[in-house]
Amino acid sequence: MPKQIAIIGLGLIGGSMAMALKGFEEFEIVGVDTDPATLDFAAGHGVADRLTDDAGAAIAGADLVFLCLRPKGIVDFLHAHRDDFKPGALVTDVCGIKTAIVDAAAVLPPQVGFIGGHPMAGKETSGVFHADGKLFQGAHYILTPRPGHRPEHLDLLRRVAAHIGCRDVVETTTQKHDAIIAYTSQVMHILAVAVCDDPDLFECRGFEGGSFRDCTRVAALDVPLWTQLFSMNAPALTKVIRDLEDNLRAYRLVLERGDTAALTQKLAWSADRKRRMNLE
Amino acid sequence: MPKQIAIIGLGLIGGSMAMALKGFEEFEIVGVDTDPATLDFAAGHGVADRLTDDAGAAIAGADLVFLCLRPKGIVDFLHAHRDDFKPGALVTDVCGIKTAIVDAAAVLPPQVGFIGGHPMAGKETSGVFHADGKLFQGAHYILTPRPGHRPEHLDLLRRVAAHIGCRDVVETTTQKHDAIIAYTSQVMHILAVAVCDDPDLFECRGFEGGSFRDCTRVAALDVPLWTQLFSMNAPALTKVIRDLEDNLRAYRLVLERGDTAALTQKLAWSADRKRRMNLE
Repeated sequence: MPKQIAIIGLGLIGGSMAMALKGFEEFEIVGVDTDPATLDFAAGHGVADRLTDDAGAAIAGADLVFLCLRPKGIVDFLHAHRDDFKPGALVTDVCGIKTAIVDAAAVLPPQVGFIGGHPMAGKETSGVFHADGKLFQGAHYILTPRPGHRPEHLDLLRRVAAHIGCRDVVETTTQKHDAIIAYTSQVMHILAVAVCDDPDLFECRGFEGGSFRDCTRVAALDVPLWTQLFSMNAPALTKVIRDLEDNLRAYRLVLERGDTAALTQKLAWSADRKRRMNLE
Repeated sequence: MPKQIAIIGLGLIGGSMAMALKGFEEFEIVGVDTDPATLDFAAGHGVADRLTDDAGAAIAGADLVFLCLRPKGIVDFLHAHRDDFKPGALVTDVCGIKTAIVDAAAVLPPQVGFIGGHPMAGKETSGVFHADGKLFQGAHYILTPRPGHRPEHLDLLRRVAAHIGCRDVVETTTQKHDAIIAYTSQVMHILAVAVCDDPDLFECRGFEGGSFRDCTRVAALDVPLWTQLFSMNAPALTKVIRDLEDNLRAYRLVLERGDTAALTQKLAWSADRKRRMNLE
């Protein structure tokens, strides 16, 4: 019998992960979902090698389990299924916050490993209908191994990351992940929705260029998912929002004073920081 | 002798315009710049049919003149060369603000037409070295004709817009242009630089996804250009920045209160507005 990977939750990320994992070593990919329409679509599009709505049976046979539910769904699943995982298995997740998830994984018995994961890819759509086996290509794959993790588990996830096309694996702590992600991802989504709250939004058709399309792209977000991600990381996120309000206000005050020398100096400083970031 | 189009200033936009205009009807494209390195590069890359550093001679022979300088450069050029344009010619510009430019064009004699223009395309680089004849493909081309403009002049610019691949021509007033562009373009650039002011910027390598790359893409901006664009549209821009600060604060306060029901409601409202915008 081949080794098995169970994907719990065939949404955009779970479905994409199942498709991207196709052909990974000798593993059979088992997709798990409770929604009949999702299972029908997955069956019709070859999303996984095998499909089931029985999560308990799937994880009992799986050597590697990906939890691809919303954050609260993952916490609930870990509590409900703590004794159903196969001894020696590795459990991981793909969630955009890590402290709450890794804390919840403390309920697992010692013979089941857990390493939190966050492949930094997404789309402004949701559901298996938009899943894409190439979604992770070029993305960072962040992992938050706990003290005492088994090296072969970490090695397995590194091979997964390579197979699905990630550019690299970044190891960090859950706390550092959540603080930085509040800045690099969460506040970008807050910005995108806040821009769309402007009363003139619908006046602007015909006047938008690339910067507007890029900044607001992620605004049509999955509301229940992002409500949970934001709420479960609120202290870090509110700090970043406050800092951004301050940085915007500083630009506004210079403009209101009509101080073009100070404006030039501020723009030169910020633009230089961006150039030094040198992102591809 | 063929009709002539003079492009004054072969920067990113002027150079791209010269290249995009290649083959436009029977016109000869004359590129004008005072920088020897720019003229050398333009000569080596076939940017225009003819090149010169003599703006006065170029505009004396041109039926259509594109002013592709920075905003203050355009204002100064109009004053310095008010009597040098060919009678019956159309003068236009490609500047991201319109009121200050069109006001300055009042110095032109009545036999020279002026229609303000803003093809909404750009890049986070500058200079002829980055010019691209495809830059305008799919962009909106905004025009601000003055009362009493000659219909054949407007028609000429519409044919230009079609030739360079713009998706449409949007006619508006200079005031409306400047108010909306403060929102759809200028504040996107302020946001991008303000995000780069975060002290954690350089900690975030390895943690950035598509939303961060998209939002900060335009931050490495041309400092003298944007200092002028922001300063010359400061009243509209500061209003939009203040509104955005308010919208961000509203999200922060809901998060600080821990009110997930209100957060869900706010996100659903904003995301729905974005979906209704339905930008390609």
